[in-house]
Order: sequence, then structure tokens, then C-alpha cells
Amino acid sequence: MTGDTLLTLQLYELVGTDASRPFSPYCWRTRMALAHKGLDHASIPWRFTEKGAIAPHGSERVPVLLHGEKPVADSWTIANYLEDNFPDRPSLFGGEGGRATGKLINAWGDIAVVGGLFPLIVADIPAHLGPADRDYFRASREARLGRKLEDAAAERDTAVIAFRRTLEPLRITLRSQPYLGGAAANYADYIVFGGFQWARAVSAFKLLEDSDPIHAWREKLLDTFGGLARKSPGFAV
Amino acid sequence: MTGDTLLTLQLYELVGTDASRPFSPYCWRTRMALAHKGLDHASIPWRFTEKGAIAPHGSERVPVLLHGEKPVADSWTIANYLEDNFPDRPSLFGGEGGRATGKLINAWGDIAVVGGLFPLIVADIPAHLGPADRDYFRASREARLGRKLEDAAAERDTAVIAFRRTLEPLRITLRSQPYLGGAAANYADYIVFGGFQWARAVSAFKLLEDSDPIHAWREKLLDTFGGLARKSPGFAV
Repeated sequence: MTGDTLLTLQLYELVGTDASRPFSPYCWRTRMALAHKGLDHASIPWRFTEKGAIAPHGSERVPVLLHGEKPVADSWTIANYLEDNFPDRPSLFGGEGGRATGKLINAWGDIAVVGGLFPLIVADIPAHLGPADRDYFRASREARLGRKLEDAAAERDTAVIAFRRTLEPLRITLRSQPYLGGAAANYADYIVFGGFQWARAVSAFKLLEDSDPIHAWREKLLDTFGGLARKSPGFAV
Repeated sequence: MTGDTLLTLQLYELVGTDASRPFSPYCWRTRMALAHKGLDHASIPWRFTEKGAIAPHGSERVPVLLHGEKPVADSWTIANYLEDNFPDRPSLFGGEGGRATGKLINAWGDIAVVGGLFPLIVADIPAHLGPADRDYFRASREARLGRKLEDAAAERDTAVIAFRRTLEPLRITLRSQPYLGGAAANYADYIVFGGFQWARAVSAFKLLEDSDPIHAWREKLLDTFGGLARKSPGFAV
């Protein structure tokens, strides 16, 4: 243990009315990364309209990690920070090649997975939010979608079929190896899993067919780290 | 040098009427991988209808690499074979993490890049083929497309816009690092570049805007290994 590891780790995590139900896909990436490194952290519940709480740390979005007094914002930056500052713990990337190409997987996860999930579950989110957050969420997300949340939800039975097809690169990979990280999960897995854990926290909508290899992979990740993800409040999926 | 490295390397590569113009995206992945490892190889021109030439090597498709008398088929399998058998040469993956997550990038490259390019350039391919290959190509590809090659080409001015959007994860990555492999190119880059080099060999259709970071990245890879890819016959793109 170096001196640095003795500093406390605190993580600002997105929640709604239930402070024990973090639901940001990006915060879940960080949660899983911290668990992978075997690092305990204190969770600081944070809500959409609490911009003032994290502004002093130089960010408008979560996750924000505090390592002692040092703030680190953005899930990808945090993953790299953990890898660099806790090199004796299990690697998140499996070497420099994995870190470099992880950037593409991070971008694919943002666009194809988080972006693909967004219209499928967005209408289920306001029910988890207090009044101020609910108004903020609806206004900002309807601007992004260009339509009402409910209009996106109305099409989700067909949209989910296109979403499943978008996941084909993941499916092909999981047919030939247990995890994106190979024999064991690593940060590449958490990038993608974060999206599913976001959905699970807020929506009962069925995203994956039971026979999908991605479904089996998600089940394994729900049970990883003593069931960290499964124990977090969510819907059966 | 181990004894193994002294065995000859021969690569079956897809060509058409011009035997010096290899155009398979998968063969180009292997070409670049061999160059990355600093390995010379003899090229064995192979055409679509020459199934009999590679059947004894256990494959119906190219690339097939012969290392001495040992055949290795499939571009991903070949990359892994080169990495394992020439460990003292520059790494294709940058460690085991990069190799594991490379599988997802390989699948994404197959679907989003090669699959996305296919309808844009497919109608330009028959002009490069002799009569028997041309008939085989048209019949098999029109069955895959579910329509005439020319019908796919007729829509390409609009289809290319969707294709460029599909490349967004690549674009985001290249805004923050020079190559998918990080500071230098590695096999992740060749996976994607192989698709562009296929297109360049057969089609003058403009795929990327000049201002696109992917365009600049492709230019650099055209010049890598002494201009290996740029010197190969193709269209200005």
C-alpha cells in the first residue's frame, strides 16, 4: 500500500428520490472499476439539479471522484486515474494496448449502448425523480430527443429490435470468449455493462432475449463482486 | 531469430484481373499485420472462383497464410498466430488486454466498417474481375443484398452519410489519440483500415470528407511501412 491508497475515495453518484439507487451508466462504470481495484468508496448521492455541489470540483456532470481532496471527473478519466494510481491492484485494461483500444470501446459504449438504450428507457426515468429534477430532465431530454419522452417510449417495442441488432459486435465477441476482457471481466465490460445497469435501475422494459449470449454475460456481471450490481435496487430483467 | 521465423510465409490474397491489386479487407488486415511484425511474405494471387486452390488448406476464404507448410486461415486467427509465434517482434495488440478487447473491435470492424462499406462500393467491383469471378460475385452478392448491385449504388450518395455517422466512435477516439493503438498504430487500426484499403483498390467513390479526422488517420496509414498501402494500385481517395 502506498500512501496514496490511504486517502479516502468518495464518489458523486446520480440518484433520484431513492438515494440508494444510483442509475447513471457512467457512474456504474466507475463503481465497477472501483470494485475491480478492490477499493472501498463512500457514495455521495447527487441529483441532476445539484450542479452547485460539483461545480467546485470542475465538473457539471457525474461521476466525480474525490481522492482525498483531489477531484477527478469523467468516467474514462477516472478509469485511467485508478489504473495509474493503483497499479498494484488488478488491472482495468490488461496493459497499454487494452487501455488505448479501450477508448474506441468507450466511444462505442457511449453511442451504441447508452445512446441506443436512451429512447427505450427514457420515459421511465421521471418516476424516479423529485419535482425539480423531473422538470429539468423532461425539458433537457425532450430537447435532445426532439420529441416527447412518451413518443419515444411508444415506439420501443420495435426500436428494441434495432437496438439488439446494434449489439451484434458484442454478441459475436461473447460467443468466443467469456468477457470483453477475455477470461475475466475488465473495464471494457464495465463500459457496456454500465448501460444495462442504468436501465435496470429505472425500467422494467425487457431489453434482451433470454437466449441472447449478452443476457448470460449480464447475469454474470450482476453477480460479480459479491453481487454488487444485483444488490442495487432495480427491476428484474 | 528462432527456427520458426526462417520458414517462409506465403499469403493467399484476393485479386481480380490485376494480380498486383489485392482488394480484400481481410487480406489487407493481414498484410499490415505482417508488415508490423517486420515479416516478409510471398503473395499468392487468389480469385473468388479458385476455391480448389485453398481447399487443401482447410478454408474456403482468404486470407490463408502458409507458415512453412502450416496453413492458418481467417484474419483474426492469423493475427493471433503471428502474435504468438513472433513474440520478439513489435506487438500487434500491446498486451493481453488489447488482444482480448481487440475481438470486439474486430467484430465492429466487420459489421460497421466492412458491412457499411459494402453497399457503397459493391457495384464497382465487377469491373475488376474476369468473367467467371464476375458472374460468381454478382450472383452471391446480389443474394446477400437482396437486390441488384446497381440499385445499392444508386443510393450511395445518401447511404454514405449514414456510414460516416456510424464511424463516430472511431472519430471520437482519433480526436484524443493518434491511432486506435494509442501513440502508434497496431492491429486495431489495421482492422478498420483494411476496409478502407479494400474500397480504395476498387472504387473512386468518396467515402470521407477531407476535414474528417478519419481521413487524416487513413492518410497516415497509407504512408506507413514505406507507403505499403499507398503504393498498392488504387484510386485517389
